[in-house]
Amino acid sequence: MGQPILAAAGFQPALGWVGQASACQRYTSMNGLLTDLYELTMAAGYFDAGKAAEKATFEFTLRRLPPQRNFVLAAGLAQVVDYLLNLSFTADEISYLRGLAQFRLAPGAFFDYLRQFRFTGDVFAAPEGTPLFPGEPFLTIRAPIIEAQIPETYVLSMVAFQSMIASKAARTVEAAAGRDVVEFGTRRAHTPEAGVLGARAAYIGGCAGTSNTLAGYRFGIPVMGTAGHSWVMSFCGEKEAFRQLQRVLGEASVQLIDTYEPLEGARLAAQGGSPLAGVRLDSGDFLVLSRQVREILDAAGLSEARIMASGDLDEYRIRDLVKAGAPIDAFGVGTQLATSADAPNLNAVYKLVELEISGIHRYTAKYSEDKPSYPGAKQVFRDAARDVIARSGECGKGEALLRPVILGGRLVEPLPTLGQARQRAAECLSKLPPALRQLETGEPWPVIFSRELRELIERTRHNLLG
Amino acid sequence: MGQPILAAAGFQPALGWVGQASACQRYTSMNGLLTDLYELTMAAGYFDAGKAAEKATFEFTLRRLPPQRNFVLAAGLAQVVDYLLNLSFTADEISYLRGLAQFRLAPGAFFDYLRQFRFTGDVFAAPEGTPLFPGEPFLTIRAPIIEAQIPETYVLSMVAFQSMIASKAARTVEAAAGRDVVEFGTRRAHTPEAGVLGARAAYIGGCAGTSNTLAGYRFGIPVMGTAGHSWVMSFCGEKEAFRQLQRVLGEASVQLIDTYEPLEGARLAAQGGSPLAGVRLDSGDFLVLSRQVREILDAAGLSEARIMASGDLDEYRIRDLVKAGAPIDAFGVGTQLATSADAPNLNAVYKLVELEISGIHRYTAKYSEDKPSYPGAKQVFRDAARDVIARSGECGKGEALLRPVILGGRLVEPLPTLGQARQRAAECLSKLPPALRQLETGEPWPVIFSRELRELIERTRHNLLG
Repeated sequence: MGQPILAAAGFQPALGWVGQASACQRYTSMNGLLTDLYELTMAAGYFDAGKAAEKATFEFTLRRLPPQRNFVLAAGLAQVVDYLLNLSFTADEISYLRGLAQFRLAPGAFFDYLRQFRFTGDVFAAPEGTPLFPGEPFLTIRAPIIEAQIPETYVLSMVAFQSMIASKAARTVEAAAGRDVVEFGTRRAHTPEAGVLGARAAYIGGCAGTSNTLAGYRFGIPVMGTAGHSWVMSFCGEKEAFRQLQRVLGEASVQLIDTYEPLEGARLAAQGGSPLAGVRLDSGDFLVLSRQVREILDAAGLSEARIMASGDLDEYRIRDLVKAGAPIDAFGVGTQLATSADAPNLNAVYKLVELEISGIHRYTAKYSEDKPSYPGAKQVFRDAARDVIARSGECGKGEALLRPVILGGRLVEPLPTLGQARQRAAECLSKLPPALRQLETGEPWPVIFSRELRELIERTRHNLLG
Repeated sequence: MGQPILAAAGFQPALGWVGQASACQRYTSMNGLLTDLYELTMAAGYFDAGKAAEKATFEFTLRRLPPQRNFVLAAGLAQVVDYLLNLSFTADEISYLRGLAQFRLAPGAFFDYLRQFRFTGDVFAAPEGTPLFPGEPFLTIRAPIIEAQIPETYVLSMVAFQSMIASKAARTVEAAAGRDVVEFGTRRAHTPEAGVLGARAAYIGGCAGTSNTLAGYRFGIPVMGTAGHSWVMSFCGEKEAFRQLQRVLGEASVQLIDTYEPLEGARLAAQGGSPLAGVRLDSGDFLVLSRQVREILDAAGLSEARIMASGDLDEYRIRDLVKAGAPIDAFGVGTQLATSADAPNLNAVYKLVELEISGIHRYTAKYSEDKPSYPGAKQVFRDAARDVIARSGECGKGEALLRPVILGGRLVEPLPTLGQARQRAAECLSKLPPALRQLETGEPWPVIFSRELRELIERTRHNLLG
């Protein structure tokens, strides 16, 4: 039971294919327009208003956690970096913008500016895999205001999506209590490309691997999977289907036994003998079936053969199966993980917090009733007891979570590998109070503002609202 | 009130940029691996078992509707066609596969086969914009079994996602009762690319346009949007921000008035006078505020200026606002639409239903307890009273919903334009009983099996289970 089904099945990372750079190349000639139109009309307006040289600081934060979450794991930074380092506009894209009614009054020099556009600013961010809480910046972009404004849409979508999936994965992995969780959800993801990036995020959150082959190729994530129902149905009988699978997969064979009748399927798989990594149940009562299947396999001397379950699983069902002692060695999780179905979006914002005009700093905030934002560039200090959101440049106790990633348009140092991000998530989560790692909502992690930040908030409110 | 805000604001489709072909080019060299690994290990197994020449028919259907839906609008076919017509494997991709443990036993000739791979089969599908019901094929792929198996993951994700978003959009547009609904959700979408394709689906479902610029560029969808809070905050005071917006957007100016205090914002916008397309509220009590803002605008002689609302809107809130007579001319809908938050996935399957081996047809089905599938290639006939799911080749009453799209690996005729798909959705929906177009769950549309199909189901069950 202890040995993971997937190692037994010969699954392994595809070494030599690790790398985050390949993902970005696809956007190189097409990323300028991958944003909301108003980012671009505002860009034209900033340009027209003579604000192109003003330096703006925007930060990505969560307004609140979804009711079912105790933390959110930061993820998606690598794609944001790819995006920023490649952000540009082709002649065709500029020509498209010029044809829109909204750009009829934009100055011609603005389009020349777009032609030369590249990101020259700074990015500070918490490393991928860091658990964060409402109000804490996941990342901060400081750049000439147009360069910092245009990325808003991409940053919000990419960071919120991957962080959401990484967090769901962490819960699911926690519920599995040491059994493997494999991400099976591309078919349910919001586009196949979201499946690729969701697999990446799920791996950061602790999944053992993914069914998504492109995620394996592009990011070096272990890829897993064996056969589906169509495989079984395409042969005249399960016996022949199982035999042919062993022929082509050998020790990696995991037989899918529920196409017709799962116990009969288990008996036929057992009769087929070795090589057999295991069997997979994809429907029915997993607790009852897994016990019966375990007996069948053991009686046939196949005690090394593992049992995998998949189909409508989430962290709650997995926890219940594990608690009930179901002899299931690995869980394949699709829909619920790939769409974070119980919390399919995060309340994330990307807000202007500071402007620097000719060396003078001006702090900005939004004091509207239900959607406030807080002024000034920030840092977060975490010690064993709490987080302190401070002003950037303050000294504080514990780990400073935000680190320089891009300075002056250049990557400061190579990003952590995906494996390192996954390791960081595991380490950071192990330091959180156990109540926050459980599935139920626990006492929130204490997050406070520093005195300096509180003063800035009050001063800014006074300046803006009088 | 009657005139749509967005026409007034000078929004218009970007003519000359309509086209579905550009989307596919990005996948040309990278789509072979955009699938679950088991599709590829099954492919190796089919090849190894001598089944490469067997012709398989797979169909995409829904097992059931989400509880909050009365229909699902088919969407995503154009991307599936792009994918299939470009499906191929690069040398690097093949070399990646060869390095995986799961392909250690695969015959060398299989990799030669992949090198030459292209889709040579047939696709039959309901046109985009067709409302469909559980059990009805959205599309059917008939091809040599490997060519039909590999697309499973892509087809499930792409068609389910776009169909889900189109359906959510149709509900939202219905609730708006003639007022414009604009898709604002890319920042909440599950990756920015999902935002682009979600915008496409939302347009099919009846949205007036999108905030996503790339969706405008790539698909010719009207793009909309004006300015965000950072615009307002970047100036010293709303008055200056509003003036500068008018300078750059002219008649397309829609002022965002809730950064500090919405009524004061409305008064400042009104003082700015013309040109002014309208104002946007992004927080607060929309019913109360929209009435007060309407008075302020009217009192300033700006009765032509429109009011747009955005922020946490869905079909239910829109319906309530419309019923209460809120003077809101357009709704910007983000999170709920872009993630279909109340039903963020569809229970879709892609099942093998028929095999043809040397001219002999063999019918396949899955009779597992909770996840059955039904044998044989199918057609759906729709008349004014019901749908009949029949065997392919049967004659029936009404419209035959499934039409040939690709035959022998070639597109039969150009696909309908996106505008035509949107038109089809509107026409088909207008023919459904009113109870099914409402937000609440209504009496299901009658869908029955033809006698011939029922007989095939029984015969196949008997053959498979005895």
